[in-house]
Order: sequence, then structure tokens, then C-alpha cells
Amino acid sequence: MAGTPWVLSPDRCFAADPAQRAIARALYTAVADLPLFCPHGHVSPGLLADPTARLGTPADLFVIPDHYILRMLYSQGVALEDLGVPTHTDAPVETNHRRIWQRFAEHFHLFRATPTGLWLADELVNLFGVEERLNGANAQAIYDHLEAQLLRPEFAPRALLDRFNIELLCTTDAATDELAHHRQLHDDGLGYIRPTFRPDAVVNLQHPAWREQIELLAGVSGIDVVDYDSYIAALEQRRAFFKQRGALATDHAAVIPLTERLSDKGAATIFQRARHGQASSADAMQFTAHMLMEFARMSSEDGLVMQLHVGSLRNHNAALFARFGPDVGGDIPVATEWTRNLQPLLNAYGADKRLRLLLFTLDESSYSRELAPLAGHYPALRLGPPWWFFDSVNGMRRYLDQVVETAGLYNTSGFNDDTRAFASIPARHDVWRRVSCDWLAGLVVQGILAEDEAVEMAYECAYGLAKRAYRVLGANEQVV
Amino acid sequence: MAGTPWVLSPDRCFAADPAQRAIARALYTAVADLPLFCPHGHVSPGLLADPTARLGTPADLFVIPDHYILRMLYSQGVALEDLGVPTHTDAPVETNHRRIWQRFAEHFHLFRATPTGLWLADELVNLFGVEERLNGANAQAIYDHLEAQLLRPEFAPRALLDRFNIELLCTTDAATDELAHHRQLHDDGLGYIRPTFRPDAVVNLQHPAWREQIELLAGVSGIDVVDYDSYIAALEQRRAFFKQRGALATDHAAVIPLTERLSDKGAATIFQRARHGQASSADAMQFTAHMLMEFARMSSEDGLVMQLHVGSLRNHNAALFARFGPDVGGDIPVATEWTRNLQPLLNAYGADKRLRLLLFTLDESSYSRELAPLAGHYPALRLGPPWWFFDSVNGMRRYLDQVVETAGLYNTSGFNDDTRAFASIPARHDVWRRVSCDWLAGLVVQGILAEDEAVEMAYECAYGLAKRAYRVLGANEQVV
Amino acid sequence: MAGTPWVLSPDRCFAADPAQRAIARALYTAVADLPLFCPHGHVSPGLLADPTARLGTPADLFVIPDHYILRMLYSQGVALEDLGVPTHTDAPVETNHRRIWQRFAEHFHLFRATPTGLWLADELVNLFGVEERLNGANAQAIYDHLEAQLLRPEFAPRALLDRFNIELLCTTDAATDELAHHRQLHDDGLGYIRPTFRPDAVVNLQHPAWREQIELLAGVSGIDVVDYDSYIAALEQRRAFFKQRGALATDHAAVIPLTERLSDKGAATIFQRARHGQASSADAMQFTAHMLMEFARMSSEDGLVMQLHVGSLRNHNAALFARFGPDVGGDIPVATEWTRNLQPLLNAYGADKRLRLLLFTLDESSYSRELAPLAGHYPALRLGPPWWFFDSVNGMRRYLDQVVETAGLYNTSGFNDDTRAFASIPARHDVWRRVSCDWLAGLVVQGILAEDEAVEMAYECAYGLAKRAYRVLGANEQVV
Repeated sequence: MAGTPWVLSPDRCFAADPAQRAIARALYTAVADLPLFCPHGHVSPGLLADPTARLGTPADLFVIPDHYILRMLYSQGVALEDLGVPTHTDAPVETNHRRIWQRFAEHFHLFRATPTGLWLADELVNLFGVEERLNGANAQAIYDHLEAQLLRPEFAPRALLDRFNIELLCTTDAATDELAHHRQLHDDGLGYIRPTFRPDAVVNLQHPAWREQIELLAGVSGIDVVDYDSYIAALEQRRAFFKQRGALATDHAAVIPLTERLSDKGAATIFQRARHGQASSADAMQFTAHMLMEFARMSSEDGLVMQLHVGSLRNHNAALFARFGPDVGGDIPVATEWTRNLQPLLNAYGADKRLRLLLFTLDESSYSRELAPLAGHYPALRLGPPWWFFDSVNGMRRYLDQVVETAGLYNTSGFNDDTRAFASIPARHDVWRRVSCDWLAGLVVQGILAEDEAVEMAYECAYGLAKRAYRVLGANEQVV
Repeated sequence: MAGTPWVLSPDRCFAADPAQRAIARALYTAVADLPLFCPHGHVSPGLLADPTARLGTPADLFVIPDHYILRMLYSQGVALEDLGVPTHTDAPVETNHRRIWQRFAEHFHLFRATPTGLWLADELVNLFGVEERLNGANAQAIYDHLEAQLLRPEFAPRALLDRFNIELLCTTDAATDELAHHRQLHDDGLGYIRPTFRPDAVVNLQHPAWREQIELLAGVSGIDVVDYDSYIAALEQRRAFFKQRGALATDHAAVIPLTERLSDKGAATIFQRARHGQASSADAMQFTAHMLMEFARMSSEDGLVMQLHVGSLRNHNAALFARFGPDVGGDIPVATEWTRNLQPLLNAYGADKRLRLLLFTLDESSYSRELAPLAGHYPALRLGPPWWFFDSVNGMRRYLDQVVETAGLYNTSGFNDDTRAFASIPARHDVWRRVSCDWLAGLVVQGILAEDEAVEMAYECAYGLAKRAYRVLGANEQVV
Repeated sequence: MAGTPWVLSPDRCFAADPAQRAIARALYTAVADLPLFCPHGHVSPGLLADPTARLGTPADLFVIPDHYILRMLYSQGVALEDLGVPTHTDAPVETNHRRIWQRFAEHFHLFRATPTGLWLADELVNLFGVEERLNGANAQAIYDHLEAQLLRPEFAPRALLDRFNIELLCTTDAATDELAHHRQLHDDGLGYIRPTFRPDAVVNLQHPAWREQIELLAGVSGIDVVDYDSYIAALEQRRAFFKQRGALATDHAAVIPLTERLSDKGAATIFQRARHGQASSADAMQFTAHMLMEFARMSSEDGLVMQLHVGSLRNHNAALFARFGPDVGGDIPVATEWTRNLQPLLNAYGADKRLRLLLFTLDESSYSRELAPLAGHYPALRLGPPWWFFDSVNGMRRYLDQVVETAGLYNTSGFNDDTRAFASIPARHDVWRRVSCDWLAGLVVQGILAEDEAVEMAYECAYGLAKRAYRVLGANEQVV
């Protein structure tokens, strides 16, 4: 049985209007092949550090580790066990990857009109050469094809790094990580794969493993962490180490972006309570708020760009978390208040030219109300790109429509793919490049931008803004 | 004096772009005449149970009972008394229906660019054959025309049921209702008109008539409701009765979707306080939160689909409520938090395949932030269609744009008309069918969907998703 | 070096679609030259009262006093001192206006795709005849040109008043202002420049200068303000005085629109605490909430339209405020709850036909959720136009899309420019007229409005609704 030929429109993500589309196409053509600058993401450095590493089976690559895929299949009644997701309890799960792939293929229609659907189409068609739209009937034939492709040397991760034209790729690494993979990458001439300092696990006093994390921190830093002062010293040591290994940035998560400096004594007291396993949830909240102030201070001193991702209530589904752990698609956003919560931090460091603070939100109602006005005022601030659920065609359009009029384009920071799925990186950047070019084309055709302005801005969206935001390029430096 | 000819565009609600419009028109043509599946609404079953019932005068049909109309006229200074709305105090109101119609006609321009305006145009032109746009000058002539039409047998409610091609029509009925009309309808072969179990009045401890409602509940259930256990038993008895009379679903309203299970003893204690008229507002809030858990449990056991409508602060205008009672256009939405409030219920029942929970919101900011991520995760959840103020062209577009990228189309539930106005049912479904087809056409022309995918999705929007959501059709069952 | 010719599209702000654009152009042509009705703004009455006043240098006119410009340059690292903004401490700032202009010109690209960019382009090209797009290279030549223009008599403020075709211009004036400029204007035949009563400084008990303000109030009113009753009497005296000087309206700011009537005794007690410098922040909040009730009462008695601007957290950047004072671009919005907060006021006065209350928000999420339903119900309410950050192409489109379906167009109030920048008034009205005409054209081409309806509505948007909202024109009076 012949399936449906899978042909992607060269004009996908462009508006219908022919005049706008012609401009969008011209803008896009000029930026489509620029190098990929990837300053924030979750690719495993081990995958790239090992020259013999491969991407695994089609199920390994596309299904089992991808929380976007898992949550959608789960929402329609497919058990994660049947998708081969390993459990914490070592309960048996599906091990036949062809069966996993079959289940995925039979539910492929669920991804219609979603960004995951766009990425999958781009990867399967343009990267892997699949020619029929995936469905239950052709699932095994396509599995055969993908399996054969994945065995070819040009689908090794290091080969794809070149093919993808990746100029920079930042990973995200625990503060306690010794960065052995990054040393290996550096030694292999892949120093453009850089670590990012993420200290959440040593900051969150309510994390069950916080005390073990502090011991790890002491171990890797060589500083005996016995009190608040030695804790700060150990963090500063780790930041210096990360910077030496090439880090450009730190990354911090919070459910609420509360910032508030404690007195030294107050911080020390809470720290001791935590060491004795006696920190309350109020302690934990205050300590996180305080540490955001401290991390801003450190960034203003060591120049690491500070990324702040706010608003995800992690592991909402307790039973699923108990069985499978985090990152299986059960994180749900909450509303986020920025104006009052960030005021202490911004009053202390917002005008400090040494600080660069990037904000990421899961609450789109805060774009025009709070984030664009804040970014359009404080010199230290830039807005991160649309994140997670909003890394989508409409998410990008709403972001640009709601942010740029107030913040200006130059207080935004281009795109980052934020992905664990290495092979999806080009597809994700491509959607952003298409949507941002189309958005600019819309302004040209409405007489709001001149064409030469749009050309410059398309270049900035695709490439320049991200380099400026992470200070690889100065604010007024020309990239071309 | 010749008025303005009233000709409705065959392409209304379609985007301007000719390429998109051509696709929208093709998609719409294929679904425009599908049967109407109406799983949630407020049509009076008595209107349909009585074969001799008629729709009354034009004022009876279009003005007096329609809170969309009343609120708009009231907002521009027209007294409800002058529109013939009966008062609680038996104060005199306008009884001359021609004068009521005249006032309505003179303010008809207020409905420009509103969904009410679209529905009225469709009803007056396409159902009743009006040929001039309504205004103060032609009001009486059009009244004559409508009055004559309404006297004709083809405008009897039962005749319209056939003309409208209604496949299913669910009413909304108090838990204490004996469903005599539904028995009559069943006996007359109209079993596709089904009741819905709405227990709000026996759940809300703060309702002034709660104790009388409990007595009513005891009476109809035959269970002596003296404590929490007998109360639960009586509710379960009523659900079984509703199900036997054809009910597919229950319906629950809450200002805040708080869910939290009380201990059996806690629930029993609050129940006794309420029986003695001593329940506090905190008791009432906790009891409602607890009962939402209980109703989820019951639905998981008896299979009735659970509908939850959240966020309407009823009867905001106290003086108007005192004079005219509820449902005269004085209900105002409030912001709604879903992620934390629903977590207890979803942790208990969200992965239970026996439960189907449909969520309806009046806070559009929660679409992309909370509702789409929740519906894109929990198997029990589906999102209800845009509700009330958002049952509109832009409301639908925002819903589709903000929900589908994250939840996928298949975690939504099509359309329901939610109307008291029987004669407006086709007009309301028609707007949804037009807007959803146009939205899909936009994705086709942007290269995000293939045409064959859009054809299937248009069918689902118009018909299939609602049948799946209310479990008249299985998730993977084909409708065609 | 030849710069880029600066030619503005005659179709700017119109959608790309040719059919929609043709209708938009026709609608716009009919309203583009209507008189400017400017019922709310912050132009200095002194600028107009003095027939010899001039607009100053290009830096005086475009940069130094404009908080939209200042915040954007500041956000990209330009110090306000370098822009000539005077400090509170008399620290030296740039005095060379050519250097200020140069810095502005070098950063002109920051305003791409912003409303400020649109206004500047319109002013520079259409008002001042600039022919090249401003940049660092041509900054001084354009300065020469502007300087020469500004010296010509036709660029005197009074000459521009005529050239702009301004029919009404309301200023905003402290309750304690003696309105000497307005008397002068009236004597010079410019009585269409009217004051607005803004009592915030005598209401906010937490303002450091509140007691001095009360002394001022006593002085100008001739009423010895010793207690709550005399305070109310003094306010009523001032309102009568403002009305006599031509005021149409009052204006009130609040971070939260809380309204709640205190007992007379409660109000009196708080007032006395404040007189003794002992008011708490809770006192201040309650007193403001109470005074909003009182101002609604007064408006219902004296007929002054009550404007309420909510949601700006002023002077977010404490260091900048300490150095430069207010209004330099450091005000950041917060989320706003309207439904519950306004309920006491609306229950008391919302159906009072003598009251007209206009609401302005900085929280767009409240448009469809709360403000449109409220305005579509209470007769006293109208929605103010999109304000401040939302006085923009997308801000207007979102406002119209989210408000009109529920509130109807006739519960909105047209446009006001809300500007301190006198010379920008026509540019701001022009954007609104373009965007509202384009929005109406979109409804025509979608078959939702007839062309004759759109023509009437375009006229209302440009002119009629503002006159109705401020009661210069009755609700059903025809303007044409």
C-alpha cells in the first residue's frame, strides 16, 4: 500500500498573503544557512565527547527520552511502560523498540498542528530522508529505513555536529559536575561545546538529597562546606572552574522569582538549620530568594550570564514521578509575578553593566504586562526567547507581538533550542528563523519597517542577538 | 422607506486571504450540514416535551429570556423593566411585546461585531426569512413578519428539532429533578434529548435554600438524608436515575476549582453543621472542594462524564439580582488558577481511564499557561470549547491558537452551544464550524498541515471530537 | 554621504491583504482629517497659555522630557545624565543639545517596530519635513534642519494648535492647582483647552508631602481642612472650581482598584491619624479605597467624568527615582483584579446614570476576562482606550479583538493620546485612526460587518465615541 508522500512546503510557517510571503522568503533565504548558535540546551555532553557514540534505535532517538512525545501519548491513554520508559522500581517495560515505534506511529496524528509535529517532519524528511508520512501501516518500513540510516557514519553525533553547522553548543551541568566530558571535548578541538553552571540542586533546601549534594560540592570544590561562608566560597570556586572550562552562563530555576537579600546572619542561620535537616519550607523559599541575589552579585563579578527560568511546577503527577522520575512530561506552569518579585534584585544589580540577566517565562500574560516593560528599562535585563510550550509558531508570534513594541527587539536575545534531542536542533532553529522572518515581513508590508531594517533584524533574530545576549559579541559590534 | 437589504456573506468568518479562503470554504462545505451534536446546553426540556408548545412572540423568543441581549441593552441605559423582564417583586414591567421589540430594534447597532449580532443575523435571515437589517424604522414590519412565521407549524419546537438536524441534545437539570419531561420525550421517541446531572444546589452550603434542597433530595431519592453518608447515597441514587433516563454527563460550577479530599469524619462534621444552619464560608469552600473529589470518584465508577465550569462570579450587581434574580447578564468572570487547585483531584483520578473530566474556563490567560499543558498530560482530561463570552469568532481563534499547539486537537472536545435559546442552536454551531475550518485552512496554507489532515480535523471539530469527549464514540473509533 | 530616503507608506498600519487594505484605506480617508478630540493628556497648559512660548531645541522637544525615549536608551546602557535629564541633586548633566541629539540618533534603530518609532517617523517626516532616516551620520544635519524649523513661527505651540486641528485638549492638573494658565487660555479664546481634576496627591496618605498638600488644599479652597468633613468640603469646592474653569473630568490613579466605603467615623479616624503623621500603609490603602467611592459619589452629583488609571507600580528603580525623580521611564505594571475590587463601587453607583466611569488598564489579560464583561453590563462604565505601553499597533488590535465582542464598540470611548509631547498628538491619533479602520475593514472582508456599518463605526472610533464618553455628545446624539 502506497502511503501519503511526505513533502514539506518550502514556505512553511509563512503567512498566506503573497506580498508578505515574498518578503518573508527573501529574508529567510538570507539567514537560513547561518551557523547555529545554541547558548542554552540539555544535550548530553557524553554523547558528543565519545567519538564512537551513536544515536541508537529510532525509538531511542525519537520516543523514549522525549518528554514532548511521552506526555502527548500518555494524555491519550498510552502507558509509559509501553513506550519503554525505564521505571525507578525496575518494573518491566517494553523492550522491543519496533513495538514502541509502532505505538508511536499509530498515534502520530496527535502531533498535527503542534511544534513537535513540525520538528518531527523536518527531521524525518530532511535529515533522514523519509518519503511517506508516518502511520501505523508504514511504521515498520520506516523503522527499517531509519535503522539503516542511523548505522551510517554520517549519523554519528560528531558527524552531525558538522552537518548541522553548529558554532556554539552550551550544555547544562550540575554545579557539582567535574566536566570530564567537556575536558575531553576541548582536547578533541570541540571547545565550542561549553558547560553551563546550574546550581539548583545545591540551593534548594527542600530537595531530599540537598545534604548529599552539599557533600558533593565540598568534594569537587576542595572546600569544606561547614557554614554559609564556606558554601558561598565553594560556589564561587565552582563558577571559576566552569568558566575555565568555557562556561558563558549560569542557569537557575524557580517556581516564583522571589528575590530578597537576607542578612549575613540570617542566611547563616538558615543554612545551619538546613545542614541539620531542619529547614522549613519558608526557610527554603527565603534561601532561594537570597541566593538569586547572591548569584546576581557573583555574575556581576565574574561576568557569567545569569539565566532565570521561572514558573514550572515540576512533577505535578505524583504517581508518575514516583514511578518514572522527572522529565517525563508532567511539569505544569503556574502564573508568575515579576514586577514585585524581581524588584530587590533589580534595584541592587539591574543597572550594573557587568550583569546580564536573561528571563524566561511560562506565563505569556506577563510578556506585555511585566517582562517587556522591565526589559525596556533595566540595562542588565534581556528577555529570553519563548520557552518550552511556547517554542512554537504561535508562541513565537505572540512573543514578538507582545514584547517588541515595548522592549524593542534589541532587548531580546534571539533563539535557543533548549533541547535534549540533539538531532532536532536544526529543525527548532529553522522554525524560529522562519517565524521571525515572516513576522518582520509582516511589518514591512504594513509599512512599519523598511526592507533594509528588516534585513538587519532578521540577521539579528537568527544569529546576532543570541551572540550579544551571551556577550560573545558586544552590544554595538557588527556581526556581519 | 426601503431598508438596508440583509444579505449574509457565504464566506463570513473566513480570513481575507483568497488562498486560505478557498481552502476554508472547501473544508466548511464538507461539514456544514453534518448533524448537530449538542452535549451541553440549557434548553428547557418542557419546550420539547410538549408537542403543542410554541416559541411565543418575537420578544419572547429573542429578547426577554436572553441574558446576552439584556446585558448589552442594560449597559446602554435600557431598564430591564422596559424589556419585559419579570421581577421578583411582581413590580409592573412592560407587557407590550411590540414596544419591547421596538426598543431592541432601536439598539440593534450595539450588537455590531459581537457574536450575538452574528447569531441574530443568521436566525433572522436564514431561519425566519427577514430581508432587511433590523432598525427602529422597520421594527414593526419585521415584528409582523416574525409573528406570522412563528404561528406556522414549521416553527414549532419539535418541527425545528428535525429541521435543525439535531442528533443529540443534552439539557441541564437539577439533581432533584424528577425528569418527567425526559420520560415524556423518551416515550415520544425523542430519547436523544438527554438530561445532565447538575448538583450545585445540593452542594453549595451557603445557598440560602440548601436545607430545602436537601429535603427535596431526600424526597426524590427515597433516602432519608440525615448525615454525610446518606447524603452521598442519595446523590449516587440520583446519578443512577439520571443515567437510566439517558444522561451522559454531570455538570458542576465553581468560582475557584479548588479540590481537596476531607477525611470522612471531616466531611461528616461539616455536613452536620450545615444541617443546623451553622456552616461557615470556609466550611462551604472546603465542602465544595471535597465534593469535586467525590464527584470525580463517582464518575470514575458510573462513567458519567464530569463537566466543570469555573470562574463566574454570579450576580455581581446585587440590586439587579434582588430585583430580577439570576441569569440577566450580571455574571462577571474572575481569574482562575488551575495547576495547584486541580492537583489533588488529578493525582487521585487524572490517570483513571474510567474518568472523563471536561474543563471550561472564563480566563483565557490560563489556556496556554495551564489548561493546555494539563490536558496534554492527564489521560482523564479534555478541554471544553470556548465558553460564554468566548463563544465568539475571536474567542474560538484564540482558543485554537493557544490550546492546540500544546494539548493537540485530540485533547479538546469540539463544540457545544451551551444555550437557553433553542432557535439559535444552528447559528452557534455554524460559527464554530466556519471558524474551525478557517483556522485549519490557515495551517494548510502555511504548510503546517496537509490538506487530507485538515479534512479529517474539520470533521472532528464539527462532529467527532464532541462524540468522543462524551464517550458516544471511542477514542480510536472512526465516525465516518 | 546620501542617507536612506525616509518615505512613509500611505498604507502604514494596514493589513497586507489587498481586499482588506482597500476597505481600510477608504474608511481611513473619511476620518483622517476629522478634528482631534483630546480628552486626556499631560501637555503643559503653560506651553499654550504663553503666546510667545516655543518648543525649544530638537533635544528639548524629542529627547529630554520623553520617558518612552529615555527608558529605551537607558535599557541599552545610555546614562540619563548623558541625555541631559536634570537630576534632583543638581549633579552636572550634558548641556550640549547637539551631543544629546547625536546619542539619540546613534541609537535610533532601537525604536524599530515600536510605537515610539512610528510617532517619531511621522513627526520628523510629516511635521518637520525631514527627508532622510535619522542615524549617527546625518544627526547633525538633521539637527540643523529641525533647529531652523523650530525657529519659524508656524512651529510655535499656538500655531500648531491650529495646524493640528485640535477641537478639545484636556490637561491634567493637581487638585490644588489655581488654573491660572487655563484662565489665561480662556481669556485668549482658547477655552477648548480644559483642565482635569487629579486629586491623587491629596488622597495618598503615604505620600511624604501629604500634609503639605493638605495645607495647599486648604489654602486654595479657602476651607480650613482640620478633619475629614472639611477635607471633603475642600475637595468638593475644588471640583466646582475646576468645573467652572471648564473641566469635563477627574482622573485617579491606583495600583489596585480596591473600592470599599468606610463608615464616616472610620474615615474620620484614619484622616486624623494621617494629619498626625501616623497613618499606616493599611490606613492608606483603606482610605484610597474609600475615596474612590467618595469620588464616584461626587461625580454622580457634579457630572464630572471619572477616569481611573490602574496598575502602574511607579518608580520601580529606586536609585533612578532618587536621582531624577518620577516620569523617567521606570514605572512597571502589575496584574490587576477588577471584578471583586470594583464590586462595592459598582454596586453603589454602577447603575447611576449620572455617573460616567472610565477604566484604563495595564493588564491586557483583564480585557476579555473582566473589563469587557463589566463594561458590557454596568451603565455607568466605559472602557478607556489602550493605555501607555498598549498605545501601539498591536496593543490597539488586541484591545479591539478582546473587548468589542463582549462589550460592544459602544461601551468603549475612542482614543486619547495621554501625552506630554504636544507635537506628537497628531501622530498618535493617526495610528489609532489607521488601526481602528483596518480592524473594521477586517470585519467587513470577513462578512461580519456591512460596509455602511463600518463607515459609521470608523467615525465613532476616530471622533464620536470620545465625545460621547466625556459627555460632550449624548449617547444617541448624531455627530455628523
